[in-house]
Amino acid sequence: MKELSHFDENNNAIMVDVSGKQATSRSAVAKSSITLATDAYEQVREGTNKKGDVLGTARLAGIMASKQTSSLIPLCHPLPLQKASVDFEWEEGESRHTLHISAFVKTSGQTGVEMEALTAASVTALTVYDMCKAADKYMVIGPTFLEEKIGGSSGYFKRDAE
Amino acid sequence: MKELSHFDENNNAIMVDVSGKQATSRSAVAKSSITLATDAYEQVREGTNKKGDVLGTARLAGIMASKQTSSLIPLCHPLPLQKASVDFEWEEGESRHTLHISAFVKTSGQTGVEMEALTAASVTALTVYDMCKAADKYMVIGPTFLEEKIGGSSGYFKRDAE
Amino acid sequence: MKELSHFDENNNAIMVDVSGKQATSRSAVAKSSITLATDAYEQVREGTNKKGDVLGTARLAGIMASKQTSSLIPLCHPLPLQKASVDFEWEEGESRHTLHISAFVKTSGQTGVEMEALTAASVTALTVYDMCKAADKYMVIGPTFLEEKIGGSSGYFKRDAE
Amino acid sequence: MKELSHFDENNNAIMVDVSGKQATSRSAVAKSSITLATDAYEQVREGTNKKGDVLGTARLAGIMASKQTSSLIPLCHPLPLQKASVDFEWEEGESRHTLHISAFVKTSGQTGVEMEALTAASVTALTVYDMCKAADKYMVIGPTFLEEKIGGSSGYFKRDAE
Amino acid sequence: MKELSHFDENNNAIMVDVSGKQATSRSAVAKSSITLATDAYEQVREGTNKKGDVLGTARLAGIMASKQTSSLIPLCHPLPLQKASVDFEWEEGESRHTLHISAFVKTSGQTGVEMEALTAASVTALTVYDMCKAADKYMVIGPTFLEEKIGGSSGYFKRDAE
Amino acid sequence: MKELSHFDENNNAIMVDVSGKQATSRSAVAKSSITLATDAYEQVREGTNKKGDVLGTARLAGIMASKQTSSLIPLCHPLPLQKASVDFEWEEGESRHTLHISAFVKTSGQTGVEMEALTAASVTALTVYDMCKAADKYMVIGPTFLEEKIGGSSGYFKRDAE
Repeated sequence: MKELSHFDENNNAIMVDVSGKQATSRSAVAKSSITLATDAYEQVREGTNKKGDVLGTARLAGIMASKQTSSLIPLCHPLPLQKASVDFEWEEGESRHTLHISAFVKTSGQTGVEMEALTAASVTALTVYDMCKAADKYMVIGPTFLEEKIGGSSGYFKRDAE
Repeated sequence: MKELSHFDENNNAIMVDVSGKQATSRSAVAKSSITLATDAYEQVREGTNKKGDVLGTARLAGIMASKQTSSLIPLCHPLPLQKASVDFEWEEGESRHTLHISAFVKTSGQTGVEMEALTAASVTALTVYDMCKAADKYMVIGPTFLEEKIGGSSGYFKRDAE
Repeated sequence: MKELSHFDENNNAIMVDVSGKQATSRSAVAKSSITLATDAYEQVREGTNKKGDVLGTARLAGIMASKQTSSLIPLCHPLPLQKASVDFEWEEGESRHTLHISAFVKTSGQTGVEMEALTAASVTALTVYDMCKAADKYMVIGPTFLEEKIGGSSGYFKRDAE
Repeated sequence: MKELSHFDENNNAIMVDVSGKQATSRSAVAKSSITLATDAYEQVREGTNKKGDVLGTARLAGIMASKQTSSLIPLCHPLPLQKASVDFEWEEGESRHTLHISAFVKTSGQTGVEMEALTAASVTALTVYDMCKAADKYMVIGPTFLEEKIGGSSGYFKRDAE
Repeated sequence: MKELSHFDENNNAIMVDVSGKQATSRSAVAKSSITLATDAYEQVREGTNKKGDVLGTARLAGIMASKQTSSLIPLCHPLPLQKASVDFEWEEGESRHTLHISAFVKTSGQTGVEMEALTAASVTALTVYDMCKAADKYMVIGPTFLEEKIGGSSGYFKRDAE
Repeated sequence: MKELSHFDENNNAIMVDVSGKQATSRSAVAKSSITLATDAYEQVREGTNKKGDVLGTARLAGIMASKQTSSLIPLCHPLPLQKASVDFEWEEGESRHTLHISAFVKTSGQTGVEMEALTAASVTALTVYDMCKAADKYMVIGPTFLEEKIGGSSGYFKRDAE
């Protein structure tokens, strides 16, 4: 005779069923940022970082990471991506300078691509950290958030102006 | 006759040589956080999130991601890890509540494990996002930063009190 | 002049052509099990295993492994999955106790998801083994088998009662 | 003011610290098996399986999977492997025939390689299943278990004769 | 106030948008080759290579690599594959012998599968190299090229006779 | 009673035992090349390729692939790498232009890093192919070969001058 597992019967992790959802065009924009001290910042801007081209490497890392999202995030559905890109903007400050990261991902599928865009933005930032950490241990990543989401049953989402 | 590539000869990406470094015991603590609206927060605390146990899933995702760091971060050296853990603390707020994430990684190797700890903390936060995004699209991840680093030629690092 | 390779012309591995198959809804249930000695069993039930929550971790490992099936099984076709879940039942015995594992996977595609379900069930069991092996080296995994299969040209399959 | 997370403070998953362990020579043998109906069995023996050489493919899948163990098993430590092999024995029966699988893995490290050997044996069996499933849906994998373990603080382990 | 990043605004890596393309049947054939000294060649032909069956292993490695193409090639779109195969032909020479490799990949998708076929052919050749390198360090891989491509907006492509 | 598997007892694939080898400093240089038509070549040189910076992307792809070598090449031992770099030289021709690729990899381990260097060079070339294939379908990759190898029991190897 078999006995049901009791302490475990609620709150079980599941990759939820999306078979009832429509395969439609979906895209998402996620934002992140990282602050750099002046030395680290100048290395990036002047191309003197000893690990090489920081923004080019970080952008590629982000794009490649978007394709690994369903391996990294346990309950995320695998999706074929149609487009992925990462853009940068610099905001100079007094003693620290901010690299603004914007990741865009697009697909046609049954679930949205927020996680793909957020993963791309996060790994882009982590890669900048890795390349600049010899010059600055005080870098701060984030805030990281969803900026915009198009498609899917929940409709259009645009984060309010801060 | 061969001509050197000119426009590309500076700033080339490289996985730098660490063969001259000592293989010593190294560890790192990275911090991240994510803010949740009350609905999403209560789902996590009460175990009613439809994808299952949020903190348990996110912790595992972070630990597993620490082992993928050198695949995700292009110029990061592969390292065998000796320990990885993720801890949480809640900070309740007025309308939004903050989950503080602390990731610890330890190895014996020629390079530090900051990136492994930062990757663990980031993927932990991303997993919380994935599991709660049906309830809250305004979650914000970060700040994400290095809290402490032990071992290696640059010695002990502890981030100043905020 | 070229000569055909002879000793190798038969029995060559191939990822067979599925382009002629219909992309239809398909699902599969696979079963596995693992036996634990009383000490290991009590650690799982009472939450005192030193590696943490055994069933929660094993379930997630199984779900995540289902997404890696086509990387692990050489001639398996890659498939986007729509749902994956793992359930447990305990059967207490005299000296050893059996954890019954049931893995469910669903997709819409040109091939079935038996391998995804079997991989999920197997990796779930392997994870229980990993977490309990300090307490019990005599654990036995299996039998592991296909319980049910829905969709595809071969139609409905349900394993006979044992 | 911060409040500790309560419902989650016990039983947290952790990749436990192995830094205090000796890096010594370690090896393990794991066993699994799979039963095949006569048709499927003859395809394997006669080299007429439409996916190709079943045992050669399954053996390679097992060896390759041993190298992915720490990616698949969440709390398993990454280890460089020094040797991996998979051997087969056939046991013919009345209506079903059993393929016995034996996987051997060796390393020099701080943790044992049971999980690598068990993963190799399991993925070998799963690959046989994948290649023969068009001919037989009643294949059964297992029992899968640790046969022998050499090295490490727990010393030599040899499973008792069945 | 934010300032645009200047030195980085051109030539940014992007996974280009394929959402406007038709999902049609596509296939590709890629060719590669590797030359072996007589000793290494005889090991392959006679089955005496100490790492085992060279062509069987190399074929599987190529097929499996085709499924990893979008992880390896940074700006390649992920595609579910419908078929993958690798074929060999030997061309005996005076002192060195050439193994001709032909990889075929097929899908239904929005982009072609040239890269999948080229990756399969390349990894097949690299695996032969790995298995024979104890006997011959002068092996040469290539030329590696696209032989044929079917489907997609650019139409049929067949490389001119050499 | 068990019967040994006969048709499979020779030529079995194995990841051979390297436990008897010394862990010493080892490095390798591999070379590859790819030829481009003038249009494709000018896109690379002038930074007008629609997928972005070709050489920067290809270099990173090669470095990252070197870290995946033991996943791609079935019987290759996993190795932690200490350094990886990729360099380029252009050789202009009449109608086609050759990009010469040189990949360097270094480790301290029990096996050499030829395969890591060859994999890096190959994936670098494949990435150039991917980014230029819209402009040129006649690109040819290779010859790809080992140029130099330092360390290990077989001693120093330097390919003869061409």
